[in-house]
Amino acid sequence: MKKVLLNEEELPKKWYNVLPDLPETVPPPVNPATKEPVKPEQLEVIFAHECVEQEVSDERFIDIPEEVRKVYTMWRPTPLVRAGNLEKAIGTKAKIFYKNESVSPPGSHKPNTAVAQAYYNKHEGINKLTTETGAGQWGSALSFAGAQFGMEVKVYMVKASFEQKPYRKLLMESWGGKCFASPTDLTEIGKKIRKEYPDTAGSLGIAISEAVEDAATHGDTKYAIGSVLNHVLLHQTVVGLEVEKQLADINMEPTIMIGCVGGGSNFGGFFLPFLSRRLDGKNIRFIAVEPKACPSLTKGGYVYDYGDTGKVTPLLKMYTLGSSFIPPAIHAGGLRYHGDAPILSLLKKLNLVEAQSYYQREVFEAGILFARTEGILPAPETNYAIKAVIEEAKKATEDDTIVFNFSGHGHFDLAAYDAFFRGKLEDYAYPEEEIKKAMEKIPRI
Amino acid sequence: MKKVLLNEEELPKKWYNVLPDLPETVPPPVNPATKEPVKPEQLEVIFAHECVEQEVSDERFIDIPEEVRKVYTMWRPTPLVRAGNLEKAIGTKAKIFYKNESVSPPGSHKPNTAVAQAYYNKHEGINKLTTETGAGQWGSALSFAGAQFGMEVKVYMVKASFEQKPYRKLLMESWGGKCFASPTDLTEIGKKIRKEYPDTAGSLGIAISEAVEDAATHGDTKYAIGSVLNHVLLHQTVVGLEVEKQLADINMEPTIMIGCVGGGSNFGGFFLPFLSRRLDGKNIRFIAVEPKACPSLTKGGYVYDYGDTGKVTPLLKMYTLGSSFIPPAIHAGGLRYHGDAPILSLLKKLNLVEAQSYYQREVFEAGILFARTEGILPAPETNYAIKAVIEEAKKATEDDTIVFNFSGHGHFDLAAYDAFFRGKLEDYAYPEEEIKKAMEKIPRI
Repeated sequence: MKKVLLNEEELPKKWYNVLPDLPETVPPPVNPATKEPVKPEQLEVIFAHECVEQEVSDERFIDIPEEVRKVYTMWRPTPLVRAGNLEKAIGTKAKIFYKNESVSPPGSHKPNTAVAQAYYNKHEGINKLTTETGAGQWGSALSFAGAQFGMEVKVYMVKASFEQKPYRKLLMESWGGKCFASPTDLTEIGKKIRKEYPDTAGSLGIAISEAVEDAATHGDTKYAIGSVLNHVLLHQTVVGLEVEKQLADINMEPTIMIGCVGGGSNFGGFFLPFLSRRLDGKNIRFIAVEPKACPSLTKGGYVYDYGDTGKVTPLLKMYTLGSSFIPPAIHAGGLRYHGDAPILSLLKKLNLVEAQSYYQREVFEAGILFARTEGILPAPETNYAIKAVIEEAKKATEDDTIVFNFSGHGHFDLAAYDAFFRGKLEDYAYPEEEIKKAMEKIPRI
Repeated sequence: MKKVLLNEEELPKKWYNVLPDLPETVPPPVNPATKEPVKPEQLEVIFAHECVEQEVSDERFIDIPEEVRKVYTMWRPTPLVRAGNLEKAIGTKAKIFYKNESVSPPGSHKPNTAVAQAYYNKHEGINKLTTETGAGQWGSALSFAGAQFGMEVKVYMVKASFEQKPYRKLLMESWGGKCFASPTDLTEIGKKIRKEYPDTAGSLGIAISEAVEDAATHGDTKYAIGSVLNHVLLHQTVVGLEVEKQLADINMEPTIMIGCVGGGSNFGGFFLPFLSRRLDGKNIRFIAVEPKACPSLTKGGYVYDYGDTGKVTPLLKMYTLGSSFIPPAIHAGGLRYHGDAPILSLLKKLNLVEAQSYYQREVFEAGILFARTEGILPAPETNYAIKAVIEEAKKATEDDTIVFNFSGHGHFDLAAYDAFFRGKLEDYAYPEEEIKKAMEKIPRI
């Protein structure tokens, strides 16, 4: 048996909200000016009311709206797959499974929350969404979601990526998304930056600032976010809840769960439904994997920091390399984030989650081994998870069941594989000295 | 209910061989020199023995080897999906379903036969395979299949495509395939052409000649073919057999079955298992869809012609535009073939299959409607099928059930969508006068 499938009736009816089950309360977002927790009504200027409620909800299970479930069934439930060929190639005694989130139309886990956020906004009378995108995964997921509810989606795409990755932009256009090279002249901050730095290639920080300004200054427009916040991780728990059902169907219990981490939503949504097992003393480890070039969980500090480089967001308590940190241009664009989701950061702090980091060349080697054994070409981000799986599998015993989240395919990342094949991928570890300096710039509250 | 799924135990154990059920015998391949039917031993110089046997088998069902089924389970059975959003957008009374063959690792139906051909060759002691590829779909499918059985795969890729479509080449490399810009200096014919035409951009005809020469002149190497021949259509019937089971599970009978046609393997594999219904007098239509730029079934003649432009293959009785026909550079590269599978051609001749042709702009419009309603971005080839589905659905009644083969996704064809969005796609119908001239060049036997 290769794949464990669920039928549509088995698609979860509720998301799992970990907040009431956490051993400690997640520190709230804080207003940088007042140092007070941000009020819900302040967040609702840019986010849907329902999402803001979910951000602090104490209900353990939250209904997935029927309209969202209907869109989910376009690709969900996703398969849980036994990676038997990979097991053989490694020579491991452990069993390896992967949850295949690459089967969604945009090719990753991202639409799990994009569809939910689009739905809530639509339901609350909003017809336009804005967001930023770097590598393009999130922008395409939101464009797809917008098409499902007949909404206009404006994506501020970092100018450098906009020019280097025309295919991602085309994918967004195919779903009707409007994609702009940021900085644009559509926002005040964009205009200002273009005036000051006419030749700038943009940055994720600038793109966030533009998308947020656009939402904050237009009554018919709100902002959608691809990771980090509690409600995003909540929506992603549909992944872990399916895995739980699928493993139960074949009488398996995971001993090691692995995911790559940028902001933390694919890994969070995947393992959070299993956290209670760990809290109950069961033998289960959760491993977050990140690039050595952007080692927030492994090398960062656990402090309050801005969510963005442009310093327009509230402060979040998280593992961070400092919001001024500009990650080097590694090919796993989705993992180039200076911080981590507050929920994930807290669990790392409490030693309930482990973190590992790898170089990009070794993770691409792992990705190629996966492609040749299991068939699917992984996204560069997913390669980090695969590398950790291989390393754990080598040490594992026959009692181990390793499960990982195959967060996305690499169909739109072939330029990165090209660089790998041509020997042009560079290994880089962010120097401790630089991390120290960046950390010093973080405001202490 | 959106998707009809089968579990792995329901994956067909046998392919369906239509040959014994055809109302007339398919005319055999003929040796151009002797005008006699080609002998099996002549074909076995380049093809696996088992494939040559299947080419003329009179057994109605042929076992799918267990090793092939095992590889199939990496993505099969594939979902049958109700295109409810598309139905709504068109305002049709009919039900529309699509068989989603895009979920395979290479993204199309092609591996159904690539895996079978690789297996048979491996089983017969062959470790190297050669083939040609134009757009790259077939070359990547064979590279994927080769990786599964530890075989070396050499792909002769038309030089123009090699240079314009680096991503397809990278996909092949990811699976270990070796991809060369044809003409190469690895074959005699390649060397000769490079000497005569140093600046040539290559052609599919030249690439076929190189791949065949390579196989014919190396004892450890054979050739694998992506469409046209009987055994290829046989392997593709796994698609139609699954559809039959899936429709039975929901108590549906198709009234219209639609597929795009290049050589005819995706459409053939899809509808042939339903042919007996038609022969039994049931209300069911089979519609083959092709580009107006390459209208072999709608405008070609039914005669013996070479399978390739280079005139190295046997003669096949088929609808053809003449083997000297060089199709214009439309974006559905997989449909740029001058002929059609002999089985399909015979059924068209007998009026058991209808043929329709469309312009490329209107089919891209159809593809975008599909992407915005059903989510998946279709391959340019698949857009032809979708256009015909939409046209039929507009005329259909509530008693109609339209089923089509969603042969592949468009993740590697975004340059074509770019041309469409920028208004740069040109509509072109191959002129009747030109067809007449090309037909006159076909040798009559």
